Amino acid sequence: MNNQKPKYHQIIEAAVKVIAENGYHGSQVSKIAREAGVADGTIYLYFKNKEDILVSVFEQKMGQFVDKIADAIKGKDNVSDKLLKLIEMHFSQLSADYHLAIVTQLELRQSNLSLRLKINQVLKPYLTMIDQIVEEGMELGEFREGLNIPLVRQMIFGTLDEIVTNWVMKEQKYNLIRMVPEAHALIIGALVYE
Amino acid sequence: MNNQKPKYHQIIEAAVKVIAENGYHGSQVSKIAREAGVADGTIYLYFKNKEDILVSVFEQKMGQFVDKIADAIKGKDNVSDKLLKLIEMHFSQLSADYHLAIVTQLELRQSNLSLRLKINQVLKPYLTMIDQIVEEGMELGEFREGLNIPLVRQMIFGTLDEIVTNWVMKEQKYNLIRMVPEAHALIIGALVYE
Ligand SMILES: CCCCCCCCCCCCCCCCCC(=O)SCCNC(=O)CCNC(=O)[C@H](O)C(C)(C)COP(=O)(O)OP(=O)(O)OC[C@H]1O[C@@H](n2cnc3c(N)ncnc32)[C@H](O)[C@@H]1OP(=O)(O)O
Ligand SMILES: CCCCCCCCCCCCCCCCCC(=O)SCCNC(=O)CCNC(=O)[C@H](O)C(C)(C)COP(=O)(O)OP(=O)(O)OC[C@H]1O[C@@H](n2cnc3c(N)ncnc32)[C@H](O)[C@@H]1OP(=O)(O)O
Repeated sequence: MNNQKPKYHQIIEAAVKVIAENGYHGSQVSKIAREAGVADGTIYLYFKNKEDILVSVFEQKMGQFVDKIADAIKGKDNVSDKLLKLIEMHFSQLSADYHLAIVTQLELRQSNLSLRLKINQVLKPYLTMIDQIVEEGMELGEFREGLNIPLVRQMIFGTLDEIVTNWVMKEQKYNLIRMVPEAHALIIGALVYE
Repeated sequence: MNNQKPKYHQIIEAAVKVIAENGYHGSQVSKIAREAGVADGTIYLYFKNKEDILVSVFEQKMGQFVDKIADAIKGKDNVSDKLLKLIEMHFSQLSADYHLAIVTQLELRQSNLSLRLKINQVLKPYLTMIDQIVEEGMELGEFREGLNIPLVRQMIFGTLDEIVTNWVMKEQKYNLIRMVPEAHALIIGALVYE
């Protein structure tokens, strides 16, 4: 996975579009090559196989996304605002790219276990960021004591993820970003009420 | 879908096991027939094709599950207790059957859109039941006013579903039912805090 070479990003962007439009199983490497405007052989200079392309797409986009969030929340001293920012960025990242949302909500949910374990490892830094926000909120007394961190993170991620999946299933026809304040209020309630 | 004939249930139970063990894509109709102890041709007396088997498995199990919950909560006059019962039954139903949990959390998440829309229609009565509990809680003043029902249901279902998926990904090695009180407390917090 040589992501310094110039055609790498071209192939990644082509892959998002082809996978969203044809499904992962219907996305032959040759289709991705055609969309990227490169020869089939070129793909194999960057990626081992189709599975490697899917995981690399996610790795690449997720890495950028986590860096962006880390940057955006580090200035805020209020933990509730950090969570608000995270929700806002989660929804707006996916709102901004129709194809990306189909890939994250449908195509990355592969039932093939070894592929799925790789995908989940890529997701982990994002989940860890959520854990850290929850821990900080407890330390600062903004959230109630004794929260079960993995369970709370499952609640937060599960809530955001299900809201996004419903919006994708409804063909993205309503405004997802408008859901941010209510989603935030529900999650804060869960974390402070005792 | 003639579910009165005696072999119907035999095939349904065989399908759950075969699909959990081989994945939906690796589950040929002939494998399901062998597990059920019937001839391949017999399967086609009951089901149009493999997709029809998957949807029917879900329909059958979901129908029973929704009836059981409706029955269990109708006696309770406290809305928080209805929700507790629903969470308890969701977790214990899946805890009780290793194969069923793999099917619900992995194999029913097909990215094929037409199949997925059918699966989601089968899920709908369960989601409607959650909506009714939330509405009742608002009417009785147990929950705060002005909750956005679809969004709240996405939070509740998303939370439960993500907790179950994590437990499946961890090969069901911890006790899911032990999570019930904490999951309930988080959800109640979301619904009452203002
Ligand atoms: C194209 C890309 C675009 C990206 C752009 C960005 C856009 C915005 C973001 C979009 C996100 C979309 C994501 C798409 C995701 C696809 C994958 C899914 O389907 S996700 C949706 C479906 N969800 C999934 O597939 C699940 C995803 N999550 C996971 O699989 C795991 O959390 C992990 C692998 C990520 C980390 O695992 P690990 O490193 O182990 O860390 P843990 O903390 O989890 O666990 C620590 C310990 O605690 C134990 N424990 C846990 N919970 C409980 C509990 N409730 N009670 C008791 N114990 C519990 C556990 O057993 C472990 O014990 P041990 O083993 O150490 O003894
Ligand atoms: C082997 C089986 C064993 C079973 C045993 C039982 C064990 C326990 C239970 C286990 C459960 C496991 C389930 C497995 C599920 C597999 C499927 C999944 O992946 S599920 C996980 C992934 N999740 C999914 O795949 C999603 C599943 N859900 C859905 O696809 C849909 O909710 C539906 C099709 C079920 C109902 O749809 P519909 O009849 O339309 O009713 P709606 O109320 O949704 O919508 C009403 C209106 O409100 C609009 N609106 C909605 N939200 C919002 C909002 N936030 N803001 C603004 N507006 C919103 C919406 O556009 C609509 O407007 P319009 O169109 O009328 O103008």
